[in-house]
Amino acid sequence: MKKMRLIIALPVFCFAATAFAQVKPEKVIHYRQSVMTLIGWNFSTLGAMVKGKIAFDAKQFSKHTGRLAFLAPQVLEGFTKGSDKGAETDAKPEIWTDFDDFQAKLNDLVNETKALDEIAKSDDEAKMKDQFKKTADACKACHDKYKAD
Amino acid sequence: MKKMRLIIALPVFCFAATAFAQVKPEKVIHYRQSVMTLIGWNFSTLGAMVKGKIAFDAKQFSKHTGRLAFLAPQVLEGFTKGSDKGAETDAKPEIWTDFDDFQAKLNDLVNETKALDEIAKSDDEAKMKDQFKKTADACKACHDKYKAD
Repeated sequence: MKKMRLIIALPVFCFAATAFAQVKPEKVIHYRQSVMTLIGWNFSTLGAMVKGKIAFDAKQFSKHTGRLAFLAPQVLEGFTKGSDKGAETDAKPEIWTDFDDFQAKLNDLVNETKALDEIAKSDDEAKMKDQFKKTADACKACHDKYKAD
Repeated sequence: MKKMRLIIALPVFCFAATAFAQVKPEKVIHYRQSVMTLIGWNFSTLGAMVKGKIAFDAKQFSKHTGRLAFLAPQVLEGFTKGSDKGAETDAKPEIWTDFDDFQAKLNDLVNETKALDEIAKSDDEAKMKDQFKKTADACKACHDKYKAD
């Protein structure tokens, strides 16, 4: 009887505790690619302003930095165990074999986007552009090591 | 000379004024589908809690409602003029022929997600679940009229 209770209880506990881990890998991959698309979408507008391709607009700049700061902490959820396979992905297997380092790099992105969003509230365009570059470096550091293409 | 100045000035103005409109339709379509994926991702966890498929967790509930409230106002940007074609899309042409109504429906979603996120800060689980259903209705009202599948 004890054994039976354990058999019944375990899956319920596992389901509640690892709701995300149970999502099919292809769904997780699609989710993380979508988060990246949103980050890229907002990042490219900021990049266009920084590079002078479109007029610098502090209000618009701040809108997009706010989105980056909000999106960056949502990336990690897209790298559940087992989501290294299941659909076409540029995510290298090293992500899961060196997860602590990967997570540290993601954390850098979280911190840089947060700093960017803070600076975007100031009037200092030069500082904004400088912090934008630091944020881009955080993207690059992770992509160089963990992104296939 | 005046004519030449006009020729030079016009594209610069147009580029700055319609930065989003100039993004290729397939990119816009990919962006809006990604926003929808993120909304769906967070919505499904809330739905699982509301339906009792996973344990109700007020903190987690609030995390996901916060994301919905943040994402909903970002949907509109994905429906630029000309993005009715360019890649596989479920967006019906009626979106662009009846844009005011479409925008009103999107605005309903913005308001319902905002209300949901407010209620999620309370202790009233029944109210949260009720407002979740209202939010789902706002999704459905738009999908029924403007989504192909």
